[in-house]
Amino acid sequence: MAETQGKVITCRAAVAWGPKEPLVIQEICVDPPQEMEVRVKILYTSICHTDLGTWTGVNEAERAFPRILGHEAVGYMPIHIGIYLLFKPTCDANKTSFFHLLDMNRVVESVGEGVKDVKEGDYVIPTFNGECGECRVCKKEVSNLCERYKVDPMKRLMVNDGGTRFSTTTNKDGGSSQSQRIYHFLNTSTFTEYTVLDSACVVKIDPNAPLKQMSLLSCGVSTGVGAAWNTAKVKEGTTTAVFGLGSVGLAVAEGARARGASRIIGVDANASKFEKGKVMGVTDFINPKDLTKPVHERIRELTRGGVDYSFECTGNVDVLREAFLSTHAGWGSTVLVGIYATPRTLPLHPMELFDGRKITGSVFGGFKPKSQLPSFAQQCMKGVVKLEPFITNELPFEKINDAFQLLRDGKSLRCLLQIAKFLKK
Amino acid sequence: MAETQGKVITCRAAVAWGPKEPLVIQEICVDPPQEMEVRVKILYTSICHTDLGTWTGVNEAERAFPRILGHEAVGYMPIHIGIYLLFKPTCDANKTSFFHLLDMNRVVESVGEGVKDVKEGDYVIPTFNGECGECRVCKKEVSNLCERYKVDPMKRLMVNDGGTRFSTTTNKDGGSSQSQRIYHFLNTSTFTEYTVLDSACVVKIDPNAPLKQMSLLSCGVSTGVGAAWNTAKVKEGTTTAVFGLGSVGLAVAEGARARGASRIIGVDANASKFEKGKVMGVTDFINPKDLTKPVHERIRELTRGGVDYSFECTGNVDVLREAFLSTHAGWGSTVLVGIYATPRTLPLHPMELFDGRKITGSVFGGFKPKSQLPSFAQQCMKGVVKLEPFITNELPFEKINDAFQLLRDGKSLRCLLQIAKFLKK
Repeated sequence: MAETQGKVITCRAAVAWGPKEPLVIQEICVDPPQEMEVRVKILYTSICHTDLGTWTGVNEAERAFPRILGHEAVGYMPIHIGIYLLFKPTCDANKTSFFHLLDMNRVVESVGEGVKDVKEGDYVIPTFNGECGECRVCKKEVSNLCERYKVDPMKRLMVNDGGTRFSTTTNKDGGSSQSQRIYHFLNTSTFTEYTVLDSACVVKIDPNAPLKQMSLLSCGVSTGVGAAWNTAKVKEGTTTAVFGLGSVGLAVAEGARARGASRIIGVDANASKFEKGKVMGVTDFINPKDLTKPVHERIRELTRGGVDYSFECTGNVDVLREAFLSTHAGWGSTVLVGIYATPRTLPLHPMELFDGRKITGSVFGGFKPKSQLPSFAQQCMKGVVKLEPFITNELPFEKINDAFQLLRDGKSLRCLLQIAKFLKK
Repeated sequence: MAETQGKVITCRAAVAWGPKEPLVIQEICVDPPQEMEVRVKILYTSICHTDLGTWTGVNEAERAFPRILGHEAVGYMPIHIGIYLLFKPTCDANKTSFFHLLDMNRVVESVGEGVKDVKEGDYVIPTFNGECGECRVCKKEVSNLCERYKVDPMKRLMVNDGGTRFSTTTNKDGGSSQSQRIYHFLNTSTFTEYTVLDSACVVKIDPNAPLKQMSLLSCGVSTGVGAAWNTAKVKEGTTTAVFGLGSVGLAVAEGARARGASRIIGVDANASKFEKGKVMGVTDFINPKDLTKPVHERIRELTRGGVDYSFECTGNVDVLREAFLSTHAGWGSTVLVGIYATPRTLPLHPMELFDGRKITGSVFGGFKPKSQLPSFAQQCMKGVVKLEPFITNELPFEKINDAFQLLRDGKSLRCLLQIAKFLKK
């Protein structure tokens, strides 16, 4: 049993204190995992637009501060020998004694009671959409929306006890305070050296996998590739349109390319996205700014009546309508992947559904994380899907606010932040 | 070659002269079929809400008068010896000589050039949704929305020449007039003794089939049963909710029953529909008026989180939302069957599609008419689907306005009108 088991770990995290306020890298306390929870050391994390959206507080109902954001990462269940900095003040006087872990080999970290599918020393990725394996949905093949741990942007507390595993005695300005809790985010919270997750949201991966790239499987790449593979079920020789060529859109294109789509039309108002698109198999580009007609009309012209599949990755409902109309009547399928932070409802008339065009949403690419992600990771390792082009920037953890800015400016696909130094087994 | 081939037939039809004006049974002229068209003698026709909606002129864009409505029918390509009433004034002086057919055996009626799959003497049903067999959609299995002949409520002219095959020299008040054209309706126009259809919209049926009942396969029963069989693909042991227990809703229930659904919940604000529902396999009834909560909440309570399939057969978008929410998250599927004569768009937020509930429209029950309806008719003849309970009233053709009133008052499911006396081969 690890000496830290059942004890609080103090470490660094990037804490969001309020909407659009720069994240503060500061000391936090991470409670031990409770039943069916695991405590994970984060090695790399990357940033996605969902982090950005929550940080900017666009959706009032989702706001909860202070909070640790982040949901794309790779981590491990470290095996260390530690040098314990005894007598450092604990975050919570009611908790048991405190040890600050240094990153040296052989300190054994803990898992909560009942956790069987991951153990200390495993390499894992956190997933914002979990798989409990027990609910009605998990027992069916058709859906990955676990009844207990499906993605929920409102969720900020752990299921077990309705509490948090994060707390701090440091204010955002560096001063001391009473211990205050820090909210969780999206079943994950990865902008921290240590996090606690429900074991349903932790997927074990091959220890020989390229760890930096595995971070991308936590969200963006799985979401995009899976939308093409699992939700649309793109077939060889078919035509596809992708609206929005950010990371997720490009992952859709890469997924469609890997499945043998004959034509992949990329649509984006930012022409600089087109070069990267070619790497992911995009065959045609449409910049709506260059057109004098609606995009769907242009796509129908290019494809004898419309594409077989369209993917909406912008989160804009007007673009959604274009995506819907760009598919072929009779069998066209539109997959929603974007996040629609708007009160507007679907701008489609019910009778338009009688043209035989389908529309559906895709969460985490339809992947059941524990059941399917390890195999997907293997396919990435074999080069079926290329991950490397998605990592456009790398920065140390301390530069997380710069990484946010890169994403806001559209200058990065994925900026990878190295959180922990580690010795690979 | 029939003596009437290439010549005009004068016969009786029920002509709609204006919105909500009683139909006028009067003499009309029916031109011979052109290339790939057929002229059919209508034996029985029935009335559906789509006839009613077009007659009342709810949708301004669909209005076109004078017009021959009707789209549920059974007819045949008669083989007669005729007694020709020579010298009766022709409808159109430019046309060839006119013969009024008496219904006696052995007058051979004509088909247009190129028609191969039906011939004189065949029993047929007209279908408002055609199957040309040549277009991209017809060549795919996934859709029945033929590019050339799919249902189109705006369509009022024949494809061949943009003209009509119906005309009259009789005004609505019985006086004489210059020849004026009468519009077609929904690829069919069956409220007439003779009609001309594109051969894509004519399906040959077994001459031994019960002809009265076969009329129902032209629309209502095929639409409902097919929505369950082909669109939702209802599986044995699953749960279903049907919103609106008119003919189409009851046909959905009957289809679900035939496929072994374990629970079929019927929802209707008219409690008198429930008795008939039991005959069609409805197991539970919900009258929204009896509830103090939304219908979807009650259905979720009854079914551990929601039904597997819901069918919206009312054409009301608020009911549509209830139907959508009444299915189980993760895999629930809502099929739209109603006609939404409203400018309102879908009252669903795009993010609600991320709960894994699907929504789709079903046209003519997803049946490819020529390819699939003969087999469906056979199954009806074997009793897999019961047709007889749908026919609640029978009236002579002259009473067509009474039949309209019965439907408007909710007093009939299908009222069958006998148009022609005939001698079955």
